[in-house]
Amino acid sequence: MLDSVLIWADKNRGRWLEDLRQWLAIPSVSTQQSHDADVAAAAEWAMLSLRGIGLTAELISTPRHPCVFATTPASLCPAHAPHILFYGHYDVQPAQIEDGWHTPPFKPTVKNGDLIARGSSDDKGQVHAHLAALLAWREIASELPVRLTVLLEGEEEIGSINLPTVMEQRRDQLKSAQALIISDCNQFAPGLPALTCGLRGLMYYQMEVQGPAADLHSGLFGGAVANPANALVEMLARMHDGQGRVTLSGFYDDVADVEEALRRQWRSLPFTDDQFAREAGIKTPFGETGYTTLERKWIRPTLDINGLWSGYQGPGAKTVLPARASAKLSMRLVPNQNPQKIATAFEAFIQQITPPGVAVT
Amino acid sequence: MLDSVLIWADKNRGRWLEDLRQWLAIPSVSTQQSHDADVAAAAEWAMLSLRGIGLTAELISTPRHPCVFATTPASLCPAHAPHILFYGHYDVQPAQIEDGWHTPPFKPTVKNGDLIARGSSDDKGQVHAHLAALLAWREIASELPVRLTVLLEGEEEIGSINLPTVMEQRRDQLKSAQALIISDCNQFAPGLPALTCGLRGLMYYQMEVQGPAADLHSGLFGGAVANPANALVEMLARMHDGQGRVTLSGFYDDVADVEEALRRQWRSLPFTDDQFAREAGIKTPFGETGYTTLERKWIRPTLDINGLWSGYQGPGAKTVLPARASAKLSMRLVPNQNPQKIATAFEAFIQQITPPGVAVT
Repeated sequence: MLDSVLIWADKNRGRWLEDLRQWLAIPSVSTQQSHDADVAAAAEWAMLSLRGIGLTAELISTPRHPCVFATTPASLCPAHAPHILFYGHYDVQPAQIEDGWHTPPFKPTVKNGDLIARGSSDDKGQVHAHLAALLAWREIASELPVRLTVLLEGEEEIGSINLPTVMEQRRDQLKSAQALIISDCNQFAPGLPALTCGLRGLMYYQMEVQGPAADLHSGLFGGAVANPANALVEMLARMHDGQGRVTLSGFYDDVADVEEALRRQWRSLPFTDDQFAREAGIKTPFGETGYTTLERKWIRPTLDINGLWSGYQGPGAKTVLPARASAKLSMRLVPNQNPQKIATAFEAFIQQITPPGVAVT
Repeated sequence: MLDSVLIWADKNRGRWLEDLRQWLAIPSVSTQQSHDADVAAAAEWAMLSLRGIGLTAELISTPRHPCVFATTPASLCPAHAPHILFYGHYDVQPAQIEDGWHTPPFKPTVKNGDLIARGSSDDKGQVHAHLAALLAWREIASELPVRLTVLLEGEEEIGSINLPTVMEQRRDQLKSAQALIISDCNQFAPGLPALTCGLRGLMYYQMEVQGPAADLHSGLFGGAVANPANALVEMLARMHDGQGRVTLSGFYDDVADVEEALRRQWRSLPFTDDQFAREAGIKTPFGETGYTTLERKWIRPTLDINGLWSGYQGPGAKTVLPARASAKLSMRLVPNQNPQKIATAFEAFIQQITPPGVAVT
């Protein structure tokens, strides 16, 4: 069956490429109000496309951009087929030819075999590949091997503001799904498509260290008052050891070991530290000892400072003892880590390392 | 002689108070262009006042506000009198009744024996007290016991921008001074005038830690790239030990010991940690162990972070791996510390503690 489906898909490639070009030509820029009608049109396009495949599709409106929601009618799949939830997004980031595009971003252009347009790789292209697969199955097998729920949003590029509400509204329809396919992933390298089978989770904190009630003069008070900026850096510095490991107690306790087979597979990928360093704009990768760069960024948990501010940031010198110092920091968590347990340990750790004379919130 | 001078000064108190009120009534706000004419008028007032005492006085114009410069004519002091340089400033910070003043800031008002006006304690009041002393000597003794050079500037509140140039221009007239009297100091407490006999010096740095060429996504790169914000806090945290001491090698080597007699004097001052904490808006003072609060803020050297910034500072969460992280920091230096030597040690220390994967400028 798979062979026939693939043959059909291959034969209809041209038609589906044309179809994708139409979708990509709609400038569904979610962040710009001037494109609201385009975002709506791109949602409509996706809904009609899903109906064309035989799914029951509708738009769910939100205070900003609609979600596209589709399910397989009973007639389209076996009674006890596994239930798969499919997520993607149809909105795109702004793009203008002046940003350095060589072809107009919303005039999809094929060049050396690549389809170049805003959204072609984030995320209309990937969503469309899945739609094409569905249609091919439908055409050859007349039914789908799975029960499918499709949820496409139009606000991924602006923080998925209304997605949680929509998910809450559709909880009953979503909760029986046995697997979730996220289309919003990368291909590893040119010619090397990837199945991304895991993403690290995120835990985000904002810390405020409060010292004196107001900024003070470092000449008049310096040395006799706990400086919250000094205290903040002291606390943040204690969160890593010199080997790039997070010092938070119990942080690694539950972390799943990287299986040797997987490590071997990853080592065989066409990847070099040099190439990664070029891509990241750094001299050389850096991280937890004992792991390769891919292991560090794919399967090992992290703790990173994402933002930092205190005192005077303008030009020249100001001898201020800041009243407070702040940081944003986040942890990337991996399989088997329990976010609640980590959060409890983190908050206890903060309490334990808070130096005298300051308060942390 | 001193007694007669003091009696004369006392007898003429009312006249001199009136004189000071005139000067204070001129809103010589150096930072606001709308007050440029007032600043010029306050300078003119000071020059004429110095001439009235018998000094040779002139205005030195600068690209912004003039300096008042005066010297004692040979006839006014003995041939080999010591040469004293006197510094003060006649400009003031902005002040409006809306800021919380109970009386108009430029209508000097006597209330419960205090003269209330902008500039009365910073720095026209102090300068005027010295002028009054000079006039009293002049009246009683007909000459001054010292050779005096007076330099008043009109830009202290805006960073003394042109003072170095003026000092360079008058180098020959300034360099023979054997002592410098700075009028811009405090009185310790109500009813307790103070001779400030030392001020800590200042060394100011701005540090930039450079990581990747551009901001990166912490989900895609986190753990495999040195985070400059992590690196910066690690470096800054290494500059103090847990006892509030600066860890910079040799930092305390040349620091003059606090003489036991001085410590005793300071301990007898009407000062409590509680009162200081209230004033500073903190729960309790904090600093180098083994020293009192007054010793810490008057005679011990410090290293403080004055500013800190990196990554995302806005509302909400952004999982950015910042491209760079920056800090402003300053040291307060004390007698016998050599700024050049400290600077060399500090720069070597920075080099030594720079973690792998980042560059510091």
